[in-house]
Amino acid sequence: MFKINENYLKLPGSYLFSTIGKKVREFSTQNPDKKIIRLGIGDVTLPLAPKVISALHTAVDDMSGKDTFKGYSPDLGYEFLRQAIVDYNYKSRGVTIALDEIFISDGAKSDSGNIQEIFDVDNKIAVCDPVYPVYVDSNVMAGRCGNYSFDSGKWSNVIYMPCTKENNFAPEIPTEVPDIIYLCFPNNPTGSTITKAALQLWVDYANKVGAVIIYDAAYEAYIVEENIPHTIYECEGAKTCAIEIRSFSKNAGFTGTRLGFTVIPKELKWGEVTLNSLWARRHGTKFNGAPYIIQCAGAAVYTEEGRKQTKDQIAYYMNNAKIIREGLHSAGYTVSGGVNAPYIWMETPKGMTSWEFFDYLLNEVNVVGTPGSGFGPSGEGYFRLTAFGSYESTIEAVERIKGL
Amino acid sequence: MFKINENYLKLPGSYLFSTIGKKVREFSTQNPDKKIIRLGIGDVTLPLAPKVISALHTAVDDMSGKDTFKGYSPDLGYEFLRQAIVDYNYKSRGVTIALDEIFISDGAKSDSGNIQEIFDVDNKIAVCDPVYPVYVDSNVMAGRCGNYSFDSGKWSNVIYMPCTKENNFAPEIPTEVPDIIYLCFPNNPTGSTITKAALQLWVDYANKVGAVIIYDAAYEAYIVEENIPHTIYECEGAKTCAIEIRSFSKNAGFTGTRLGFTVIPKELKWGEVTLNSLWARRHGTKFNGAPYIIQCAGAAVYTEEGRKQTKDQIAYYMNNAKIIREGLHSAGYTVSGGVNAPYIWMETPKGMTSWEFFDYLLNEVNVVGTPGSGFGPSGEGYFRLTAFGSYESTIEAVERIKGL
Repeated sequence: MFKINENYLKLPGSYLFSTIGKKVREFSTQNPDKKIIRLGIGDVTLPLAPKVISALHTAVDDMSGKDTFKGYSPDLGYEFLRQAIVDYNYKSRGVTIALDEIFISDGAKSDSGNIQEIFDVDNKIAVCDPVYPVYVDSNVMAGRCGNYSFDSGKWSNVIYMPCTKENNFAPEIPTEVPDIIYLCFPNNPTGSTITKAALQLWVDYANKVGAVIIYDAAYEAYIVEENIPHTIYECEGAKTCAIEIRSFSKNAGFTGTRLGFTVIPKELKWGEVTLNSLWARRHGTKFNGAPYIIQCAGAAVYTEEGRKQTKDQIAYYMNNAKIIREGLHSAGYTVSGGVNAPYIWMETPKGMTSWEFFDYLLNEVNVVGTPGSGFGPSGEGYFRLTAFGSYESTIEAVERIKGL
Repeated sequence: MFKINENYLKLPGSYLFSTIGKKVREFSTQNPDKKIIRLGIGDVTLPLAPKVISALHTAVDDMSGKDTFKGYSPDLGYEFLRQAIVDYNYKSRGVTIALDEIFISDGAKSDSGNIQEIFDVDNKIAVCDPVYPVYVDSNVMAGRCGNYSFDSGKWSNVIYMPCTKENNFAPEIPTEVPDIIYLCFPNNPTGSTITKAALQLWVDYANKVGAVIIYDAAYEAYIVEENIPHTIYECEGAKTCAIEIRSFSKNAGFTGTRLGFTVIPKELKWGEVTLNSLWARRHGTKFNGAPYIIQCAGAAVYTEEGRKQTKDQIAYYMNNAKIIREGLHSAGYTVSGGVNAPYIWMETPKGMTSWEFFDYLLNEVNVVGTPGSGFGPSGEGYFRLTAFGSYESTIEAVERIKGL
């Protein structure tokens, strides 16, 4: 008689964004005349850049010709894409990454959910609180998190690193020593960043205690301030302790196009075994590559035109971030983030819980955001707004909230 | 101190097709003048059908427009694609499948590798021998297979169901009762099929002992004979015991385009828990959908033109299969498969092992096939050739082998 993986049953409720989607659909069905503005899920709205579109058309044409057709992709992804990544994401910042240290994937969500597989079940993870739900949920599914307490909103076997206004939304080295540390900067959901010197402390700590850092740099392209690291490998010693996950979703609008990559330096070892070889084995066994045409689209992002066009898109979103940040601030709300990240993190007013404020905003002004508590217990009393809407709807959303 | 998942270290050598690729690259480097014909890895060679190409272009244009741009896909995939699947793959065969029983993915390899996650680690799997390596390897990684013996070529905790010429390459119900049974028909690698009546016996058995069948129907479109089931749900009772995995790789040439789906009927339960809900949770947590443009391409396969054009492609490959089957037979080789499947399964001559014959063919006539032993111990002494080459190269490969 087969038996299910009972760890799945420990997960409370459904995935955060599925719940939000359901609530919004229900409201929309009951109020078909209301114009809802969605600043909830971190989904982009601008069309793909012209250079990316033309690369896609060219690649589609390749697939139509006998001599240019492409079947299975190379295990790690096409070299033309990995070479562009090596050059533009790393070499340009003084970081040397080898071609076979890069693994092209269908996105950072898959990679950040799957990466835990190459570690032992008995490893203990540390996460920021609040945090992108995938890190914890994927570890729960693997049986690594113990049990969930509805009272505390915490898992019994997870080390939480609170990120609140008290510590300026920057995690502190935990008292208990973790085996795996998830870090994400610029941060989702708080929009915070840490300096290179602060990240260096984490790298030094991980190397000292033998922990591995899973570094999610999905929002790297939004960094504008100096002294904020774009990759963890800018820190000395990071190659012996850190895996970096990257996405094309937010820097080039690929949320519905699906492309990402993970970097695992060969210096990162457990005894004589490189983590690179383990991930290569997983990649070769349970994945068959991102589509050729999508990899071509990804390479187009790195061309001169592609870089300029996607930079303009980011500037457009960051103008939205400024509108939200300054608008809400002027209306008396306490806000952070939105400077080096497309997320604005606000305190809920009048002692409302995060979900109360969600319902309040949805019902009163038809604006959708994300309840901070959905990201972890320390997110309670906070609310996330994203800069990914259109300029017009962002203006309108802020006006609506100001009018409350 | 972090620890790796040591189950990975139990895997002997690298993934079969990576090994073949490496051997071929080495030969090619040493013999740049030799024209290698690849009938090894099951990769297609015909360009995508014109209707698929035009759908791709249209979808790319959608991604370039403000009002037609698509971000994150719905959790289960776009309804337009799931509806086409419901209608053409199931309703047309008298099978009722609901829209929310279909999960669109980036391909059958991912799904067949990941599906084991929703089951307990202590479940025991049964596999055909020989078998597509992903089923076993993904279970090894999860710690479900015990230890590997180089002597027997077997894992200590896997139930093997030999498929050899003695049983006409059809597995028999095993003596030991398994929890999870992997079946693939038309079969990779042997190219064999079983009748609907024979598959019904498996369904009845699974329902009786409480096992779940993972049914890989990736080669369904190649069935030409009557009385061979196209989906396991043609069998009575299959909805309470079977998960079906499908691919666009072989019926529409999507090996480099990446699209597949998995069907989990809601009647399939463990106590009150539906496996559908578990897979939905995994899908929502560790995956973010196949690209919109690829899902549009998939839908085009189901249009009238798409069905005709992909049917022509299959006919082209099956003509190759006939050429290989009849050519090798006339040359005195013992061959099977190649009637309802794009794979021809041949016995190696003169008592050679599978790898000896691989090297022999590569070195003597520069033809690449796949060693049967790479698929399991009962594959020793066999060799797989695929029908996915061009007509011209297939003719030439057969002539070269005949001339040995």
